[in-house]
Amino acid sequence: MTGSGAEPGGSKAGPAAGSWVDSAERLGVDLHLELSGSGSRRTALAGALRDAVRSGRLPPGTRLPPYRALAADLGVARNTVADAYAELVAEGWLTARQGSGTRVAARARPPAGAGRVPEEALVRDPGPAHDLRQGSPDASAFPRAAWAAAYRRALGTAPAAAFGPGDPRGRIELRTALAEYLARSRGVRTVPGRIVVCSGFAHALRLLYGEKVLRGPLAVEEYGLAFHRELLAGAGVRTVPLAVDEHGARVAELSPSGSGARGVLLTPAHQFPTGGPLRPERRAAVVDWARGRGGLVVEDDYDGEFRYDRKPVGAVQGLDPEHVVYVGSVSKSLSPALRLGWMVLPGRLVRDVVAAKGEREGWTSALDQLALAEFLSSGSYDRHVRRMRQRYRARRDLLVTALAERAPWAEVGGAAAGLHAVVRLPAGRERDVLSAARARGIAVEGLTAFRHPGAVGGPGGDGLVVGYAAAAERAYGAAVEALCEVLARVG
Amino acid sequence: MTGSGAEPGGSKAGPAAGSWVDSAERLGVDLHLELSGSGSRRTALAGALRDAVRSGRLPPGTRLPPYRALAADLGVARNTVADAYAELVAEGWLTARQGSGTRVAARARPPAGAGRVPEEALVRDPGPAHDLRQGSPDASAFPRAAWAAAYRRALGTAPAAAFGPGDPRGRIELRTALAEYLARSRGVRTVPGRIVVCSGFAHALRLLYGEKVLRGPLAVEEYGLAFHRELLAGAGVRTVPLAVDEHGARVAELSPSGSGARGVLLTPAHQFPTGGPLRPERRAAVVDWARGRGGLVVEDDYDGEFRYDRKPVGAVQGLDPEHVVYVGSVSKSLSPALRLGWMVLPGRLVRDVVAAKGEREGWTSALDQLALAEFLSSGSYDRHVRRMRQRYRARRDLLVTALAERAPWAEVGGAAAGLHAVVRLPAGRERDVLSAARARGIAVEGLTAFRHPGAVGGPGGDGLVVGYAAAAERAYGAAVEALCEVLARVG
Repeated sequence: MTGSGAEPGGSKAGPAAGSWVDSAERLGVDLHLELSGSGSRRTALAGALRDAVRSGRLPPGTRLPPYRALAADLGVARNTVADAYAELVAEGWLTARQGSGTRVAARARPPAGAGRVPEEALVRDPGPAHDLRQGSPDASAFPRAAWAAAYRRALGTAPAAAFGPGDPRGRIELRTALAEYLARSRGVRTVPGRIVVCSGFAHALRLLYGEKVLRGPLAVEEYGLAFHRELLAGAGVRTVPLAVDEHGARVAELSPSGSGARGVLLTPAHQFPTGGPLRPERRAAVVDWARGRGGLVVEDDYDGEFRYDRKPVGAVQGLDPEHVVYVGSVSKSLSPALRLGWMVLPGRLVRDVVAAKGEREGWTSALDQLALAEFLSSGSYDRHVRRMRQRYRARRDLLVTALAERAPWAEVGGAAAGLHAVVRLPAGRERDVLSAARARGIAVEGLTAFRHPGAVGGPGGDGLVVGYAAAAERAYGAAVEALCEVLARVG
Repeated sequence: MTGSGAEPGGSKAGPAAGSWVDSAERLGVDLHLELSGSGSRRTALAGALRDAVRSGRLPPGTRLPPYRALAADLGVARNTVADAYAELVAEGWLTARQGSGTRVAARARPPAGAGRVPEEALVRDPGPAHDLRQGSPDASAFPRAAWAAAYRRALGTAPAAAFGPGDPRGRIELRTALAEYLARSRGVRTVPGRIVVCSGFAHALRLLYGEKVLRGPLAVEEYGLAFHRELLAGAGVRTVPLAVDEHGARVAELSPSGSGARGVLLTPAHQFPTGGPLRPERRAAVVDWARGRGGLVVEDDYDGEFRYDRKPVGAVQGLDPEHVVYVGSVSKSLSPALRLGWMVLPGRLVRDVVAAKGEREGWTSALDQLALAEFLSSGSYDRHVRRMRQRYRARRDLLVTALAERAPWAEVGGAAAGLHAVVRLPAGRERDVLSAARARGIAVEGLTAFRHPGAVGGPGGDGLVVGYAAAAERAYGAAVEALCEVLARVG
């Protein structure tokens, strides 16, 4: 084969001059080669190609660019490329077949380690046999088809500017849809201009406290995510624990001479993880406190969409939009893999939060934002939440029923809402139970890990935080059965 | 109409018990209402609905939940909901029509401002008449259909675990595709385990320096983005300017007693913004410096895919994967709206960068990551880059030709690659030219703004940094024409 022969893959009949888009369609992969200075161009190119194949940079099956394209890239004659390809075909490194172009030969696998950085063992966690961890929805229930359809519709109708640098607050389409949705479903009062899109609650904390838009000390519920406490500590913010009971945080402890806190972080819809909703008097009281002190309430509405037995609990934000930062995300309702959340801000904080976010960094994909806007306004979000609410309620019922039968001594709390329940254990038993659960292949967390190290008062009680959402539908029954086996031995 | 009548919208025939998924499909929107304690349930519900419509929380056209669904949510009888709806229909707030359910009436528009946070004027920037800013690709050329198809395929074939919490390094599918692509097209040597996905170059800087994985002082090219210098200064990192000429940064100034820098930030493929590629001897020298000093090269390969006249310039990383952090993104090749980039790390830095990223925060959408993996491995990425390279080359040619004719005194630099060129101006004229350009509706940046405030030596020269990618295809010619008009008056 020589350069004058027909090229495999059929790019010989070039397009008319100027029809670049058409020709680009057929030009194949982009290839980086460095030709050494010595010897003929053909020898140098053949050597560079051989080296790329041998080292594994060009894996078997890779389609090489047509002669013309590579020749143009390298500034060599078309025949030089054709000859070099032919040389490597002859040597067995490449194969050339009419209609499929020139490819790296299947047997041209590189010797282990040759010319490469040593491969590391990639940690592939197969996951626990029984997943009862809190914090995630059922990943197998992600509405793939509906989401992909919303994404396609959103991309099809978006203005061109959506693909350029964007408003650091996030796409206006999403902020508009959120303002409507949050008003309707969560009682939030706001306008699109006061919503800032972020990647989740932790990002919101980083923007507010890591970037010093707000200052500590910050009162936090005595139970909560250690991850959030650590993030705040890393940002130099002192956290002051606030006692929690079955009616949520005891916000009366905030005032007047109490903690010195300038703000308070709450989970009013469903105290995390103990489960009580903040009772109405306390909701009013914490807003009064914020008004009186010029303080701020940060409302983490992490699972507000999921309520089962009791009447809906709206957002505290609705009571006073100027003294509450409301934060939500799709992490529980759709998927934590989307990294998409929102902050609803008092007007006076918008500018600082946007500056903290960074004018040049949107952080969250504008395309996913457009898809979520479409998903919300088409009603798909409501449908999905409602479907999942029914599924999780059934799981909650199964858990409560099974425990009542198999471990009747166990008190189950916080199960009126959310994606998890707290199973109280006899004093001093948490560690044993956790280790028995682990031995049984159950991934579940102990209540103690959620307790603020500075919490005063009683020992806090032993318990398990049982997430009933993360397991796939078909695996959940066996997980509850395994948990019951472990707990039946406790009583 | 009373509660015993047929419900508009036809959800009267309820599904069989247990068929939750089916019924959820038909349950409509999620509605948050708080019923006051006084009066009958019906009165309270009617009042809450009236209030929600009047305040604008329920906009005209919104479809209300079926009786049964809202009754279950609120814990009231089905007839109570039916009666309350009927009351509001009678009052004109709602409309009920067979087949389309109960909706908020079109005329029920809320009075301006009633019960709402005052609406702020949303700043809507119409954009400049002629966009010649550097930094962005042509947003109108985003490959919507191909990307949406890749997204759909990726979602359809992803394992369920992809929708749960993920590996903080990013999806393995993407890291695998990147390792292959970067080896093939940029000469990068790595394995998937050493790639960490991030949201772009600024995020990489934050992870490396903001989170103190690496320490300053950091040598930087005397020309670069002020935004990056400010980000580093904000993280407490001192930057030391390194002189730049037509062959890139003068890295000899680094050693041995020079700057005291522990690392150096370079744009070797195309010095930003002056445009020289780092010459081979300097590439070797900077790697030698890093080895000798235990220092690190941070390689910003911001537009490495776009080269026109000269032979490809591979990544410096390929010379020594243990002393170079290579950073790239889709911001120039696809869209800055995706917020998707990657760091290729020396093995010893992987653990610290992952810790800095935060185990619980993926930052970038896993679904977009899966889509990019599919886009890369299907060859769509290569095709798009090649098509855009041809388009930008044509634009570059148009710019160079027009300037040669209309402003022959102007020296055009750095145009062999990338998405921008530097037009040198007579000394002292930059400010005038920028203001004339602004008056003509041209958005373009001056060279001086990119100069490090601590740069020593000459005044650095006046100039314009002309981005030829950001304008839409149909708008580009007029933008060049406008620029020529302004420059023709300079000579």
